[in-house]
Amino acid sequence: MITHKITFLPQNREITFADGENLIRAAMEAGVHVNASCGGEGQCGKCRVIIESGEVEGGLSERLSAEDVEEGYRLACLSRIKSDLAVRIPVESEVDPSVLNKYSSIRRTARIQQLNLEDLKDRGLFIPPVEKRYLDLPEPSPQDNLADTSRLISFLKIHYQEHRLVVSLPVLRKLPGVLRQSRFKTTVTLARPVVEGGKTQIINIQPGDTTDRNFAIAIDIGTTTVYGQLINLITGEIPAEYGDFNGQISYGEDIITRIVFAEKPGGLDKLHEVVTQTINRIIHTIIKESGISRDEVSSVTLAGNTTMTQILLKVDPRYIRRSPYVPASTLYPLIQAVDLGIDLADHTTALVYPNVSSFVGGDIVAGVMGSAIYLSDLLTLYIDIGTNAEIVIGNKDWLACAACSAGPAFEGGGIQFGMRATQGAIEYFSIDPYTLEPMNMTIGNVRPKGICGSGLINIVANMFEMGIINSLGKFNPALKSNRIRQIDGVGEYVLAWKDETQIDRDIVLTEIDIVNLIRAKGAIYSGCQTLLDEVGLSISQLDRIILAGGFGSHVDIEQAMTIGLLPEIDPDKITYIGNGSLMGARICCLTNRIRKDVVNTMKKTTNFELSETPSYMSHYVAALFLPHTDLNLFPRLKQRLKSGS
Amino acid sequence: MITHKITFLPQNREITFADGENLIRAAMEAGVHVNASCGGEGQCGKCRVIIESGEVEGGLSERLSAEDVEEGYRLACLSRIKSDLAVRIPVESEVDPSVLNKYSSIRRTARIQQLNLEDLKDRGLFIPPVEKRYLDLPEPSPQDNLADTSRLISFLKIHYQEHRLVVSLPVLRKLPGVLRQSRFKTTVTLARPVVEGGKTQIINIQPGDTTDRNFAIAIDIGTTTVYGQLINLITGEIPAEYGDFNGQISYGEDIITRIVFAEKPGGLDKLHEVVTQTINRIIHTIIKESGISRDEVSSVTLAGNTTMTQILLKVDPRYIRRSPYVPASTLYPLIQAVDLGIDLADHTTALVYPNVSSFVGGDIVAGVMGSAIYLSDLLTLYIDIGTNAEIVIGNKDWLACAACSAGPAFEGGGIQFGMRATQGAIEYFSIDPYTLEPMNMTIGNVRPKGICGSGLINIVANMFEMGIINSLGKFNPALKSNRIRQIDGVGEYVLAWKDETQIDRDIVLTEIDIVNLIRAKGAIYSGCQTLLDEVGLSISQLDRIILAGGFGSHVDIEQAMTIGLLPEIDPDKITYIGNGSLMGARICCLTNRIRKDVVNTMKKTTNFELSETPSYMSHYVAALFLPHTDLNLFPRLKQRLKSGS
Repeated sequence: MITHKITFLPQNREITFADGENLIRAAMEAGVHVNASCGGEGQCGKCRVIIESGEVEGGLSERLSAEDVEEGYRLACLSRIKSDLAVRIPVESEVDPSVLNKYSSIRRTARIQQLNLEDLKDRGLFIPPVEKRYLDLPEPSPQDNLADTSRLISFLKIHYQEHRLVVSLPVLRKLPGVLRQSRFKTTVTLARPVVEGGKTQIINIQPGDTTDRNFAIAIDIGTTTVYGQLINLITGEIPAEYGDFNGQISYGEDIITRIVFAEKPGGLDKLHEVVTQTINRIIHTIIKESGISRDEVSSVTLAGNTTMTQILLKVDPRYIRRSPYVPASTLYPLIQAVDLGIDLADHTTALVYPNVSSFVGGDIVAGVMGSAIYLSDLLTLYIDIGTNAEIVIGNKDWLACAACSAGPAFEGGGIQFGMRATQGAIEYFSIDPYTLEPMNMTIGNVRPKGICGSGLINIVANMFEMGIINSLGKFNPALKSNRIRQIDGVGEYVLAWKDETQIDRDIVLTEIDIVNLIRAKGAIYSGCQTLLDEVGLSISQLDRIILAGGFGSHVDIEQAMTIGLLPEIDPDKITYIGNGSLMGARICCLTNRIRKDVVNTMKKTTNFELSETPSYMSHYVAALFLPHTDLNLFPRLKQRLKSGS
Repeated sequence: MITHKITFLPQNREITFADGENLIRAAMEAGVHVNASCGGEGQCGKCRVIIESGEVEGGLSERLSAEDVEEGYRLACLSRIKSDLAVRIPVESEVDPSVLNKYSSIRRTARIQQLNLEDLKDRGLFIPPVEKRYLDLPEPSPQDNLADTSRLISFLKIHYQEHRLVVSLPVLRKLPGVLRQSRFKTTVTLARPVVEGGKTQIINIQPGDTTDRNFAIAIDIGTTTVYGQLINLITGEIPAEYGDFNGQISYGEDIITRIVFAEKPGGLDKLHEVVTQTINRIIHTIIKESGISRDEVSSVTLAGNTTMTQILLKVDPRYIRRSPYVPASTLYPLIQAVDLGIDLADHTTALVYPNVSSFVGGDIVAGVMGSAIYLSDLLTLYIDIGTNAEIVIGNKDWLACAACSAGPAFEGGGIQFGMRATQGAIEYFSIDPYTLEPMNMTIGNVRPKGICGSGLINIVANMFEMGIINSLGKFNPALKSNRIRQIDGVGEYVLAWKDETQIDRDIVLTEIDIVNLIRAKGAIYSGCQTLLDEVGLSISQLDRIILAGGFGSHVDIEQAMTIGLLPEIDPDKITYIGNGSLMGARICCLTNRIRKDVVNTMKKTTNFELSETPSYMSHYVAALFLPHTDLNLFPRLKQRLKSGS
């Protein structure tokens, strides 16, 4: 990849960026403010910059006069980087250069941590729970007319030291035909027991040698989205993956409304049906895309929150939402995929991830297994923010978990112009502390439609550090701008005027939105404090943070600490694993050890119902500030606020 | 029961018989010949006897003149015993009294041995594989919101020392509702593991205390008939039982034609469907009759021959009938009854009896388990004669088994007037050695339609002892009677003239019939000899014989030895267990130990394919005589033949 060095002046801030990339994105990543209202679409004409040296492609617009162009002015959002550049940001009035420090720091997202397949192989743990064996069996004769199963089992005993074997009914049905069709040269699929001394099931039999083809499917059943990965059990690779909205969305956006629907006559069956339709659509897509046959999928692992899991299993979820919030089960039996309505062969086993409690589900357990917290010495905070937020704290010796009633603010819920992280969502924001003009960057560089979760954190953190809002989330009444206004006694900031948007309304951030965000982040932070309290530790002892969930990928982690969502920690110690639930489902397909480890891990895990934990409320109230009532918990921020003030 | 002593003259043979019973039946049991052609219907008028003392009810007929009645003549078949009697059999001509010894000996059927429930209880083995436990669980609270399964399992651990418990999916689905409906007072059904250290499955959960109601069903799937018993698992009793023809009969009478049908497109599915319909009809009948609910049946055990079993499991049986006669399996997985199409609740487990080989099936294994041969020191010969014949020899240390190609002679097959043991079948016969007139007794005392298996043995044994046929089964040419005739060079004996029958034809026994019987009995006897030979023992070392199958109940065991079907042994050492397959299925419902024992028993069992065992053919040829080429194997018979000659 060709990269170029971009120097932004007068800040003198440097960043290395890829050839061909958008110049305003480079400014954004560098934390350099450039006025921009239209999200990067080239409409507002505000993002004028001067190319002092080097070359860009494009950047011209009717918004620039011939003289402007002659002087080197370009629109940053339309300019593509073609060489090293020196780019000057025009500043309307002369300002004290120290003010430049008030601009955002360099944007920083968490390091991405992926499942390390090679490491798994090196440690000898790449042992899928379903394996194949090729058998060249002796043909029966009058002197040797053992039953077909006996022939199979004794051969496996002698030649592969396989013991405690059982044959399933579907295999028994195929067995006589397949053996004779293939002249007793056959491949069996063995499903390993979870516990030592357990039985190995012969779940499939195929003619000839098919040991080079064995697949599994990992499924994450999210409340909103379902993802599936096809896993090649020979190489560990992922030949295909696909995600789709959970068909249950039509029956309610969140878990509670789903449960309410499930309680209606026929409701549970309906929700079960539509989610299996979604799963089947995903499975059909990845099977088709990869060109394998349905019969080659030996196992499927599914992870979802407790409600999604119970609905999948067609187990009434009504008690999940009622005090004292009792789930039907934590562990689930190993079953056949077809028994769940999943359109795979009748030999395909289905493993459903266990859950800890009604609100800490299999998706979180899968994340714990996938991220291997349960094997680590490091005191880890694991946060999964999706439609709900769950946290896990602990290490290889103990784990504590809780669901936080954070609400859906991070997915745009409860925010006036909140939206999911799709095209048109403001994902990045900075503000000129003097003009109070915004820099809005949207997903897709189109005119804004609303604000997504990571954008919201960005806006609030920026405004807080710039002194535009105070630690209660109220606008500084001393600031004068037509962008800051009071509507019915509630302060709001206009991010984009209606003619700059796609929705023909002013897009604003209100004090109510900010309070909702503070409540959400306060719930998570105080949940974390409460869990640590209960085990006699404190926030400052955390060694690392793992972020999971779609939300985490675009969050500026420094800003997440600024608003007090994450505890302040060395940013290098924060990693992002993406869809932890899917990662956990995948690793369970790759190594049989997970199925044993998960049971032991469950035993080491303590669930806390925060509402029943006395210290939680005081922690929560103390967290309803930016970043927190106790600024000493955020020493770096404290330092910045001091030096900036 | 009121009984009376009957003395038959001039033989002076006494027998004790029940009040109200038919006098000719008493004669039959006493081995006293009374001429009778019409099977006991009162039509032929031949069974004239003189009541010398005592009283009978009835016995009058237009066939008797007023003088006859005055002199005490009655028709035996119409006379009911009402007191002690002296009954004289009129003898046409004066005969040497020693000749009387030529008449049959007292009829003797095998002692019936039934499953001894009390003994099972005394030995502490009345531990059904499915048990119930009543649990008064603590209700969940905010301080105790364990998952429902965890609550259940931890309570069972603490209060009942139950470990290694797993919950099935159907239970998981019922669990949340049942627990709350019953305020956490609930009864669980536990299915025990076969092996120690295995898992106990919680297969059902019901509200309240239902520990006093727990049922199982035992099913014997015969080629011809299917029997079912409902078993009360609290008391061990049988509240209802029912038998019906196997619906597969329409698709072939014997196993081979069934397999041929199964090989046609859709054939296997059809045969599977009709046998499950038969099973379901039986289950519905016994459930209805006993007034229990379908949900209260916790388990079902099924036993059948290998072909019946494979069809039940929908496993292609085509290789059973082809050399080298390989069955799909010997052991079968524990499955759910619903998976076999059996109309029971979805929690009901189905255990299918294992088989030894293609022709020694689960019905025989069930018989071995039910009759407890496998626990005995006695060297036992177990013979099950149904549509086929199977034999097992052995004791607690070893077992050898084989299927004998006996053919269906004992069920009436291959015999010109052979028929099953239903109404109108000649089941008893004796012959007057001077007049050669027969005494035919039929099932139901109606005019004869044919000859059933036990009748056939009776006829041939009688004729052989009376010298009417020789050891090759040929009629003595010196005898003159219109009942003995040659048709196309084949000798035959007219049992009943056409106007005495229901079929408007003479009912005869031909030399070909006799040869077929000799082949059948020779196959069984020589099979037994071969098995013993292979383990270095001889016929004379047999300690006892157990007869199983519908056939055995009416066989005169002394006569079965006379024809060389059974080895000669003290008749007290022969027992009859009836439907051994059903008995085995029942005991498997009653004690969990069987499921473990059966696997060990299978390991101790050696199957012999007689056609592949070199000594078999010479044993077989030597057995193609009445009783055998070596009369020294039958010392008592030898003695009788000597004294009679």
